[in-house]
Amino acid sequence: MKRLVLKFGGTSVGSIEKIKNVANIIKEEFSKGREIIVIVSAMSGVTNDLKKKSNLISENFDDKELDVLLSSGEQVSCSLLAGALIDLGLKARSWLGWQIPIVTNINYNSSQILKIKTEEVSKFISNQGVAVIAGFQGISFENRITTLGRGGSDLSAVALAKFFKADSCEIFTDVDGVLTTDPSINNKAKKIDKISYEEMLEMASLGAKVMQPSAVQASMIDDILIHVRSTFSKKPGTKIISENDIDYKKTVTGIAYSKNNAKISLVGVVDKPGVAADVFEPIGSNNINIDMVIQNTSLDGKTANITFTIKQEELKKTLNIIEKNKKKINYQKITHDGRLAKVSIIGAGMITSPGVTHMMFRSLANEKINILAISTSEIKISVLIEENLTQRAVKVLHEAFGLN
Amino acid sequence: MKRLVLKFGGTSVGSIEKIKNVANIIKEEFSKGREIIVIVSAMSGVTNDLKKKSNLISENFDDKELDVLLSSGEQVSCSLLAGALIDLGLKARSWLGWQIPIVTNINYNSSQILKIKTEEVSKFISNQGVAVIAGFQGISFENRITTLGRGGSDLSAVALAKFFKADSCEIFTDVDGVLTTDPSINNKAKKIDKISYEEMLEMASLGAKVMQPSAVQASMIDDILIHVRSTFSKKPGTKIISENDIDYKKTVTGIAYSKNNAKISLVGVVDKPGVAADVFEPIGSNNINIDMVIQNTSLDGKTANITFTIKQEELKKTLNIIEKNKKKINYQKITHDGRLAKVSIIGAGMITSPGVTHMMFRSLANEKINILAISTSEIKISVLIEENLTQRAVKVLHEAFGLN
Repeated sequence: MKRLVLKFGGTSVGSIEKIKNVANIIKEEFSKGREIIVIVSAMSGVTNDLKKKSNLISENFDDKELDVLLSSGEQVSCSLLAGALIDLGLKARSWLGWQIPIVTNINYNSSQILKIKTEEVSKFISNQGVAVIAGFQGISFENRITTLGRGGSDLSAVALAKFFKADSCEIFTDVDGVLTTDPSINNKAKKIDKISYEEMLEMASLGAKVMQPSAVQASMIDDILIHVRSTFSKKPGTKIISENDIDYKKTVTGIAYSKNNAKISLVGVVDKPGVAADVFEPIGSNNINIDMVIQNTSLDGKTANITFTIKQEELKKTLNIIEKNKKKINYQKITHDGRLAKVSIIGAGMITSPGVTHMMFRSLANEKINILAISTSEIKISVLIEENLTQRAVKVLHEAFGLN
Repeated sequence: MKRLVLKFGGTSVGSIEKIKNVANIIKEEFSKGREIIVIVSAMSGVTNDLKKKSNLISENFDDKELDVLLSSGEQVSCSLLAGALIDLGLKARSWLGWQIPIVTNINYNSSQILKIKTEEVSKFISNQGVAVIAGFQGISFENRITTLGRGGSDLSAVALAKFFKADSCEIFTDVDGVLTTDPSINNKAKKIDKISYEEMLEMASLGAKVMQPSAVQASMIDDILIHVRSTFSKKPGTKIISENDIDYKKTVTGIAYSKNNAKISLVGVVDKPGVAADVFEPIGSNNINIDMVIQNTSLDGKTANITFTIKQEELKKTLNIIEKNKKKINYQKITHDGRLAKVSIIGAGMITSPGVTHMMFRSLANEKINILAISTSEIKISVLIEENLTQRAVKVLHEAFGLN
């Protein structure tokens, strides 16, 4: 018998009517003769509201108490959903993290799942029961409630699929699946039928809307088949599967982008071992996330130029840190640019298609879009451009790589 | 060292500001060098809102899932309060019912507490920690969440006071204490300093607003000193203590009343053993609550007149039931009256004061208030009167017994 993990996000259970709709979806899947484990997020808006309450109590609200507070959101949605299933005549019950238990480490607010006990739930579902499990939460060895961090219900779903050896993990959400690009800036965006874990991770800027990147990573490690699909339509969604199982007809799978990037260039840095560390150590220790890094040797071979990108809102702080460490870093000149976007083409088929890089740069050049920096990985090419050219760049690349 | 149980009701923690206020009250008690266990209800309105949600899912919402749902309310308030205490620099943490555990039987929705494990919390409070415990909830031997029924946080407080051998159980609420009568119909109502458990139980119609009658009963059984006091003022409240510890200066402690009573009289019922059972069995089995019962033998000694009172809204249903069972009950005539009130004088000192009954009836007669039925217990005399005379009756009795 097929065993499915069905995960419903906050928008899917955002109202009583929507919870009833989800109950009907589950009943339909159950009637196909499947063993079903349901994971549910808090009703949309609830977690934010609870978080806001905690902030009003204290800006440094205790992390353990925060997990007690936030986990109540999933407690509400999973009991309501279990009640709705029982009302439809199914055998159903809810389990909270501590009841199963879903054992995590003690990193309160962003815990990792260590182990899930399966006996009780397995017995229940093999006896025609539908198990409804609260997502996002677990219990530590200190016997206290933990949570997995934002979007943690995706992680719960993947972990349950692993420990219960499910055949598939279905992520129900409010869109039809993973799209080739953001439909709000390109109405030619199309649903992707199959995508590899690696591509999905690189698509984070698009994919994060449908599934938490860390959950994609977890499913990749354990080779769990993910199916991202809509709660509000019956259309098949996007399957996230192993690269080996995809027959690549297209070189490029999707076009991702992120706005609000800033670039800093240090010119004439003395080129010696450890110089990159001298630059990035003080920035990283201030919790500033560095994205792209490009280092070129200068013509004279004695100095280097280092360019890197950060989020726009951290530009000022970063410039201050560099200024403070000027002596140590020892550069001749610093330049910066604050309104940039990163546009990426992503596709596992790129490795075997040597013309891709050329085609990308040519397509952008034809549109007179200047490339300020380039960074590549095996399945991705990213370019940095002026932010106001983002939409044009996405559109031209979407067409050039046959995604329209 | 004195050990206190402090219970805060829903209105006391009804907003973030109120939770901060409660945290300050606790800090003040703690700074007096006391060991403190706090019990907290859900923020006001939350339990009703959750109940409403469950009703929208199903009119017969599963009772076990309902307890999972409702218990989330106290989870929110106790984590917020614990967070607020930590923010004030205190060592504090929350415990949910299952964490302690507070073990109950499996009567979901209205469970009874069987046992409370004290080790962990005792250790915490004897090491300068403030324990914040979610009221209203427990865990059954089936490892599922249970709740104690409406007002159950009072029961939690009394049970914790018992198992932790607390010196006092302080019930914080939104009024100054127990009053001699309802201030909304008599502005001469005064706070009672001390009241016995028995009186408090008889005062249910007034007392229920400040403390759940079943919790009063539980505290009487285990002789737990209760102190009902206001969250919003520093005035001492009402102590509920053993009758033996009260020095009765006044015969009557308070005047209670309830409106919306209806009276049914069966005239000429054949007077034989079992006749009362024949009358009340069909009514009781339809879940209609009978309050006062008066049975008189008629002059001829062969028939009896039976009068009883019920809630007004159940008058029609009750009359139908009697009609259906007319043959079995075998009465000559039935009369009923739908707009009545029951007014009671309550006082443990009444037993030793023979003039009380006389004074009550005389006071009412002077006001031309007709008494329709009388029922007495050792510490209470109740009379049934026309509903629109309630306020006048309460006022005259309040003055007559020296409570003004």
